Amino acid sequence: MENFSFYSPTYFEFGKDAELKAGELVKQFGGTKVLLHFGGQSARKSGLLDRVEKALTDAGISYVSLGGVKPNPRSGLVYEGIELAKKEGVDFLLAVGGGSVIDSAKAIAAGVLYDGDFWDFYSGKQVEKALPVGTILTIAAAGSEGSPDSVITKEEGMYKRGTGSNALRPKFSILNPALTQTLPAYQTAAGATDIMAHLYERYLTNSKDVEVTDRLIEALLLTMKHETPRVIADPNNYEARANIMWAGMVAHNNTCGVGRSQDWNSHNIEHELSALYDCAHGAGLAVTMPAVFKYVMNHDIMRFAKVAVRVWGCQMDFDHPEVTALEGINAFQNFLCSIGMPKNFEELGAKEEDIPKLVDVLCHGDGRQGSISGFVTLNEDDCTKIYKMML
Amino acid sequence: MENFSFYSPTYFEFGKDAELKAGELVKQFGGTKVLLHFGGQSARKSGLLDRVEKALTDAGISYVSLGGVKPNPRSGLVYEGIELAKKEGVDFLLAVGGGSVIDSAKAIAAGVLYDGDFWDFYSGKQVEKALPVGTILTIAAAGSEGSPDSVITKEEGMYKRGTGSNALRPKFSILNPALTQTLPAYQTAAGATDIMAHLYERYLTNSKDVEVTDRLIEALLLTMKHETPRVIADPNNYEARANIMWAGMVAHNNTCGVGRSQDWNSHNIEHELSALYDCAHGAGLAVTMPAVFKYVMNHDIMRFAKVAVRVWGCQMDFDHPEVTALEGINAFQNFLCSIGMPKNFEELGAKEEDIPKLVDVLCHGDGRQGSISGFVTLNEDDCTKIYKMML
Repeated sequence: MENFSFYSPTYFEFGKDAELKAGELVKQFGGTKVLLHFGGQSARKSGLLDRVEKALTDAGISYVSLGGVKPNPRSGLVYEGIELAKKEGVDFLLAVGGGSVIDSAKAIAAGVLYDGDFWDFYSGKQVEKALPVGTILTIAAAGSEGSPDSVITKEEGMYKRGTGSNALRPKFSILNPALTQTLPAYQTAAGATDIMAHLYERYLTNSKDVEVTDRLIEALLLTMKHETPRVIADPNNYEARANIMWAGMVAHNNTCGVGRSQDWNSHNIEHELSALYDCAHGAGLAVTMPAVFKYVMNHDIMRFAKVAVRVWGCQMDFDHPEVTALEGINAFQNFLCSIGMPKNFEELGAKEEDIPKLVDVLCHGDGRQGSISGFVTLNEDDCTKIYKMML
Repeated sequence: MENFSFYSPTYFEFGKDAELKAGELVKQFGGTKVLLHFGGQSARKSGLLDRVEKALTDAGISYVSLGGVKPNPRSGLVYEGIELAKKEGVDFLLAVGGGSVIDSAKAIAAGVLYDGDFWDFYSGKQVEKALPVGTILTIAAAGSEGSPDSVITKEEGMYKRGTGSNALRPKFSILNPALTQTLPAYQTAAGATDIMAHLYERYLTNSKDVEVTDRLIEALLLTMKHETPRVIADPNNYEARANIMWAGMVAHNNTCGVGRSQDWNSHNIEHELSALYDCAHGAGLAVTMPAVFKYVMNHDIMRFAKVAVRVWGCQMDFDHPEVTALEGINAFQNFLCSIGMPKNFEELGAKEEDIPKLVDVLCHGDGRQGSISGFVTLNEDDCTKIYKMML
């Protein structure tokens, strides 16, 4: 196991009606003037924003609102948020939404306390300080509610890039599984796929003797395998949604990822797809992961055989472990199809003729030097082949 | 899943030589004058205390020392520590040792800021504030390095009682698996048993639909099942010790215990044994758990069958699930014996004639009303039968 530090100081309030505590939690964590950040009108229509605003008012917290965050959140709204927060003297960011809203709020939180261009943080500069952020989660997916991470797309060039810092970990996150019951099945499934990707990206390690985190990752994958079809079958299954929501947080606050190298090449390869086609990140991952895994599995056949046996219930073929490894990848892809995720470029709305552009931005955009690194280092040729496997 | 809140703000520094960061971590978390709390002379002889003292001095942190914490830590030393800390103007507790030292430090930390008798906190009063505590862990066992808990034995009456509060969660914990390599095999095994008990106590729930935490608990039990024999076979196996150390923390910071009722009757029943005979807590648990589990298994046969199949590799007997349930309990007990733990009163050094006294203190001591509650409520008659099953 590698040396590591781990820090997950977020306070989680989990369960029915948990959002009613938003005001007192903001106060508890020192906020007096909130920027209430959200996406489209669904949070307003559902009554959630009204409840949150009342909770803030009841606790004596004033607020200004900034809605309009889109999936694959854009830099333009971040600049707008930074300006608004400075003008209004905001001292706390409250994100009501999914990973996109939370990531946008984190970017604003860092940008408000920084004199330069916030995009510096998404091009390699470390975030040292940020305004405190709280979240009210409306989809189990990105894990941003418990993570130090934020991913933003820069409109100029459509670069989708991430940053990570303990300063960006939310002070509190409110997780009410009932808030996710109104999601369309496709979004629910895309969220589940994103969670499973966070697990696979940690599973694909070059570190040895990491049984405890292997087992924790497998536990969460098994949970997702069991609970996701229950939610697809019955969107109102609160219990299944609760299990997924906690799994999504633990998957990404890194409890199960410490002390080991991680991958993130599937995420990197997918980010170009959602940046260009504005598809759901999870849907892009559903198409990306099986291709990446098949491409890299020879790097460590036993690792893929292990997840095949332990998670997908495959029989170990001791004479031909590569058969088991491949069987596990296929089982995962079949699972993703069964919950309604796309399996190729066509179903995703991506185009073969864009592959050279995708590869170019992936391997050269924003400071990269012709390859991406992770479980296996992949150059332009590798990435081209992987995108072609998705056709 | 039940509603819950979860808060684990401890900063973990994990790996080789991690103790060298003690000084800077104390400073980072606001300490200027430390009470360095430890047990016997092993920490001095091994050179660990010298390294820690140097780290403090190098960081410009002054300190006073209080050694002498014994296993099953006593109230007497806590009173002494409170007095010393007040006299010396200490503002930070640094515990170097295992759960006993950490629990003693937590008790002092709470007592320094309280005008009354610190024992109030161990008789039902909630700890609201405490001095900050840091830990340098020397045995994977109690999980106190990441938990809000502290257990102290009151010499007057030999009551062993616990308290829990987020105010008692360590600010930082330093986990260097190499520090545990010098432990005698018996202590290593007792520590592993304690970790597994923390998992079983959470597993025995009356909550339904808690798949995510069931799976996480099983993952950690599987880790302990795999790694513990490796450490018993080779005490210098750093990797196995590292896996156990992280498992022990995650087992007890409650990541895997949220949203569900828990048990803790095995702990309660054992506490009387270690209070009376001063045996290792883990050794007492090794004798206690199989008896308790057999006594209560009919309350939920399928739960015991589940852990038997998923952790102990038993075949599910679909016609007679009680056979599988019992097979799993026996497999667990055999495992505990195989790592050198006792299996009955005699091996533990306990005496049949003490059973009435054990039951009396257990069910009536310090405010209890004739029974203990958990997975199943157990009255005096139940507890007598359970102790007799351990003969």
